[in-house]
Amino acid sequence: MKKFSFKNDYSEGAHPAILNALVSSNLAQQSGYGDDEYTQEAVQLIKQRIENPEAGVFLVSGGTQANLIVIASILRPHESVIAATTGHINVHEAGAIEATGHRIEAVPTPDGKLRPEDIFGVLGKFEEVHMTRPRLVYISNATEIGTMYSRQELVDLSACCREHHLYLFMDGARLGSALCAETNDITFADLARYTDVFYIGGTKNGALLGEAIVINHRELQNDFQYHLKQRGALMAKGRLLGVQFAEMFRSDLFFEMARHANQAAAKLSAAIQQLGFPLLTVSYTNQIFPILPADVIEQLLQQFDFYRWQKIDAQQTAIRLVTSWATPDEAVDQFIEVLTKITGK
Amino acid sequence: MKKFSFKNDYSEGAHPAILNALVSSNLAQQSGYGDDEYTQEAVQLIKQRIENPEAGVFLVSGGTQANLIVIASILRPHESVIAATTGHINVHEAGAIEATGHRIEAVPTPDGKLRPEDIFGVLGKFEEVHMTRPRLVYISNATEIGTMYSRQELVDLSACCREHHLYLFMDGARLGSALCAETNDITFADLARYTDVFYIGGTKNGALLGEAIVINHRELQNDFQYHLKQRGALMAKGRLLGVQFAEMFRSDLFFEMARHANQAAAKLSAAIQQLGFPLLTVSYTNQIFPILPADVIEQLLQQFDFYRWQKIDAQQTAIRLVTSWATPDEAVDQFIEVLTKITGK
Amino acid sequence: MKKFSFKNDYSEGAHPAILNALVSSNLAQQSGYGDDEYTQEAVQLIKQRIENPEAGVFLVSGGTQANLIVIASILRPHESVIAATTGHINVHEAGAIEATGHRIEAVPTPDGKLRPEDIFGVLGKFEEVHMTRPRLVYISNATEIGTMYSRQELVDLSACCREHHLYLFMDGARLGSALCAETNDITFADLARYTDVFYIGGTKNGALLGEAIVINHRELQNDFQYHLKQRGALMAKGRLLGVQFAEMFRSDLFFEMARHANQAAAKLSAAIQQLGFPLLTVSYTNQIFPILPADVIEQLLQQFDFYRWQKIDAQQTAIRLVTSWATPDEAVDQFIEVLTKITGK
Amino acid sequence: MKKFSFKNDYSEGAHPAILNALVSSNLAQQSGYGDDEYTQEAVQLIKQRIENPEAGVFLVSGGTQANLIVIASILRPHESVIAATTGHINVHEAGAIEATGHRIEAVPTPDGKLRPEDIFGVLGKFEEVHMTRPRLVYISNATEIGTMYSRQELVDLSACCREHHLYLFMDGARLGSALCAETNDITFADLARYTDVFYIGGTKNGALLGEAIVINHRELQNDFQYHLKQRGALMAKGRLLGVQFAEMFRSDLFFEMARHANQAAAKLSAAIQQLGFPLLTVSYTNQIFPILPADVIEQLLQQFDFYRWQKIDAQQTAIRLVTSWATPDEAVDQFIEVLTKITGK
Repeated sequence: MKKFSFKNDYSEGAHPAILNALVSSNLAQQSGYGDDEYTQEAVQLIKQRIENPEAGVFLVSGGTQANLIVIASILRPHESVIAATTGHINVHEAGAIEATGHRIEAVPTPDGKLRPEDIFGVLGKFEEVHMTRPRLVYISNATEIGTMYSRQELVDLSACCREHHLYLFMDGARLGSALCAETNDITFADLARYTDVFYIGGTKNGALLGEAIVINHRELQNDFQYHLKQRGALMAKGRLLGVQFAEMFRSDLFFEMARHANQAAAKLSAAIQQLGFPLLTVSYTNQIFPILPADVIEQLLQQFDFYRWQKIDAQQTAIRLVTSWATPDEAVDQFIEVLTKITGK
Repeated sequence: MKKFSFKNDYSEGAHPAILNALVSSNLAQQSGYGDDEYTQEAVQLIKQRIENPEAGVFLVSGGTQANLIVIASILRPHESVIAATTGHINVHEAGAIEATGHRIEAVPTPDGKLRPEDIFGVLGKFEEVHMTRPRLVYISNATEIGTMYSRQELVDLSACCREHHLYLFMDGARLGSALCAETNDITFADLARYTDVFYIGGTKNGALLGEAIVINHRELQNDFQYHLKQRGALMAKGRLLGVQFAEMFRSDLFFEMARHANQAAAKLSAAIQQLGFPLLTVSYTNQIFPILPADVIEQLLQQFDFYRWQKIDAQQTAIRLVTSWATPDEAVDQFIEVLTKITGK
Repeated sequence: MKKFSFKNDYSEGAHPAILNALVSSNLAQQSGYGDDEYTQEAVQLIKQRIENPEAGVFLVSGGTQANLIVIASILRPHESVIAATTGHINVHEAGAIEATGHRIEAVPTPDGKLRPEDIFGVLGKFEEVHMTRPRLVYISNATEIGTMYSRQELVDLSACCREHHLYLFMDGARLGSALCAETNDITFADLARYTDVFYIGGTKNGALLGEAIVINHRELQNDFQYHLKQRGALMAKGRLLGVQFAEMFRSDLFFEMARHANQAAAKLSAAIQQLGFPLLTVSYTNQIFPILPADVIEQLLQQFDFYRWQKIDAQQTAIRLVTSWATPDEAVDQFIEVLTKITGK
Repeated sequence: MKKFSFKNDYSEGAHPAILNALVSSNLAQQSGYGDDEYTQEAVQLIKQRIENPEAGVFLVSGGTQANLIVIASILRPHESVIAATTGHINVHEAGAIEATGHRIEAVPTPDGKLRPEDIFGVLGKFEEVHMTRPRLVYISNATEIGTMYSRQELVDLSACCREHHLYLFMDGARLGSALCAETNDITFADLARYTDVFYIGGTKNGALLGEAIVINHRELQNDFQYHLKQRGALMAKGRLLGVQFAEMFRSDLFFEMARHANQAAAKLSAAIQQLGFPLLTVSYTNQIFPILPADVIEQLLQQFDFYRWQKIDAQQTAIRLVTSWATPDEAVDQFIEVLTKITGK
């Protein structure tokens, strides 16, 4: 029998309601390349949800694709993007941004978040002409290490960016989880107001695939479809993305799925802490990073799959547990039970 | 009521058997990024089908993506790709190849196919150092205008390429239709033997999305997944592609779908010619280009959707009719009936 | 003894006055990267000469460098440049423009010049999104085949570009020769008025190296030095370029050198035609293309060096003769004498 | 009267012997694009000097150009270059490397040098596919902060690179100064043996402009001129570079100039230390970084030009003093005299 996996939030297919929507729309003839009725509906639903009727909404297949196209469409050749060193574009995209010709100016931060002082630090060291010109700030919410921005942090960063002629772009691969976190005070409408571009991750929140790029800044919307086409992101059967996002936003499905994932993570997190183990970061999202002794990890791995994330010292290592819309309550309960048994409490 | 559309072969979703496969595999937990069991099965099935156990097989979401990644992964910065002027990469990919830094050396040909003499023509004009170095030949089968290569043409072109240190790459967005055409004498095994890289189009032959890139040349397989990742083509839920290609090649489904499309086109073609209208190109695939008087086109457009392709003279225009796995016999019969009525025969 | 060469206009070093200027300024300490007094003087002299005090003037080392930096600094990724098929960027720059990510939309023209109808032809075939967006028109004056634009042609092309939101960029590698041609009616001030960017070629008109890029369009001046730096064109000892352009434009030296080259070419052209040989193109600049029988060419090559340019038929070939500021009258006279003797007239 | 500048080693033109060589060769007709006799002589002289008859030697105009062309010619799209964070390509080239599509994996080091353990650190963190593949190690000698590699350090780093399939590339913008330093034990022949590519800086050692790229690794020589052309580095009058490098290596001029610069720096360094001021780095090359109190710096700046380099604390700042082939003994003596007077010793 296969071990249950907490490795990531893309281990299963899609929420059954989404598959049903694909099945029921299957034979209706539609125009290609995003010009179908489902995509149009999805775009309208998203604009309403974020309360920005002027937004440009574009559906693409994945996060690295979204990141590279947004960034390359905005920057001129000599302009660079500021990101946290832990940012996905700086770590796990195989040089995708650089492959479009742009340098990432990476800033180390303790919690994976960027604040105005981080931006000032970068801008301060720049000399004209011999260095790149920073023009865009890339943040992730939730971050790659499970943390989230508060509304005030977003407002402050946005103000800092506007003052210094920097665009603000939020990678929302795990945006659902962030917006549904217990401690979150950011709304979709805030994202429309305080970012220039953000995207709503579907792949890691119950869709087969898909991210919805939302461009709030009017000038950045121009010609965006050309960039999609040029980078191989304009799908012939764009309906595949449209059907899914329409289904997720016609009802509350998008949030329901994220809430489910967060609740599973919260339950794990509480139990693990109660058993006396600390966490690497404070996380209210669907990724948690418990720090466990090596032998405990060994025993857990006999019954569950998950990643070792970071060695803390000779005895202890932080692991990563990821939950999703599909995580059964039983798997969570079983994990807690096994861990309790191992620790003999 | 909506008019029936002959505009393209991606107007519908996927073959029901493919959707069923997605539904039935949906909740099985799988590894991400193409490391799932379905993708592994699909890769094995394709290797068997093409009789090349050494091939590298990689699934991606679309044709432009396949083209740009294959070409950019092969060429060094100063190397260029030779293509027919009608080639998809030279016309309809919004500069995707150039965006990766490479020049297309385009050759005009009457039927959209390249032959050794076309290659010689390009090589002959090249001077060292001040021009690019052609290193790759790009062909489409079926071509963008419905024509197909014969086995002998493929063998000759392949020999020419090898002699001149050129790689041969076949865009197979409509490969199913070509291989199932009445006059075809090329097999999958021939493609493994005579091309360095080709791909098997799923999007235009009944899948929701997906192209299977087959790399026959051993050296070109190295590190190919890095290129996929860097260009945003490595899908987190790679299973979505794996399930579909496994379903298409586990049985004869891939060919059945292509045959259906071809038969519909052949029926249209025969009837149109019988009514006295010529075709722009000789096509046995699922795209035909009848030349019709303007008023006939006007009347047809009241009941069917299709593209005007090319103005022939003041009175006549070639239209494009595209059929697919999903084209109902009734739609074909009705088109013929309407056209017969219009022409008063 | 070495044969005299009419192969090109960069066979010798620099005009002695330019070398003297380098020698006499050699030990004065100056700031680097174009921030020296000589460059500042050159920039002022050029702005006066073109009667555009608002121009941005930037000195770089060569023509391909100028072309690729100007074009890459202007275009966004999905935008393309329209050029004549004979344009230097389309033929002899080893894919330099494509290497910056941009497609050249090449238009065949009989005389190497672009006219509004050529532009319309390109724009007419473009569909949104699946093709590039043309945004820049590249012309050469003199062209690569010795022809020149008239003032009216320039005015018309400029109006066409402005109407269609296209920038106009003139490659002036041989601008001196064009402006000094007997039939020329374009002034430097016209170039400031009717182009968005042009450059003044030094390398092929008596400098050791150097082209002066003039950006008339205000927005295109922004951050241009970053582009120079990023492409490796910002010379540490920028004074080397500044001293030369200051010397050429402090007096009438730039024009004197070009006139000398043109007069030598005109003398050759007249004599060749008088001997009954036609020319491939009508040229009043320093490149002429006489069509000669194979045996005549053979005999000439025993005493002079020059390139065969284009085979006309079994018996005849067009050759290219290039003159320069350094071409001695004796070399011209001797060539005419030898040709006269060969032809037995 | 102008203040004497210790700002950099490119404040003056060229050594008079180099200018003389340009003057005396000026009117000899030569082939273009590096195919001239002077370049051929320079290439031969350099091959002899480095004792590698199989080397490929290519002359270009500047350091950023050399760096970007070498790196882009070697790496495939998914491959990256390892450099010290202080490396010129990582700091002062305006994103030139990223503009060719490649990521720099930067490693912090205390002295600007890379050692095998730095390489292991980078390789250790790399996961397949989601990160770039490091393929090249970039070092500078002398480094950007005046330090130098010892022969043993070079041998060890070279062995490490070969073991891990990494190419080794040395930026030699200030190679002359490094090789002539009092403590140096590396020879030109060592560079041919232990690096795959290096370059010999002319611009910062008495030439008007020019760096000589030496490619020791045979495969990396292939087609290198295409890359030069494509990046705008193939000068029409390549003789300009050839004459200068031939002059520098026909005699001992290259080393004489570097020795002069080093001696001036050493004299400054000794005097400054004797006056009780520490240096930021141990330097035997032509760049030194004394740490001085703010008021001393203020007073010095009234009579000399130099850069403030790095703030040490509230009271003290490291300045950068750069000497060159052209630095007069009087300027050095005067600086010491002024500093002595200021400090009242």
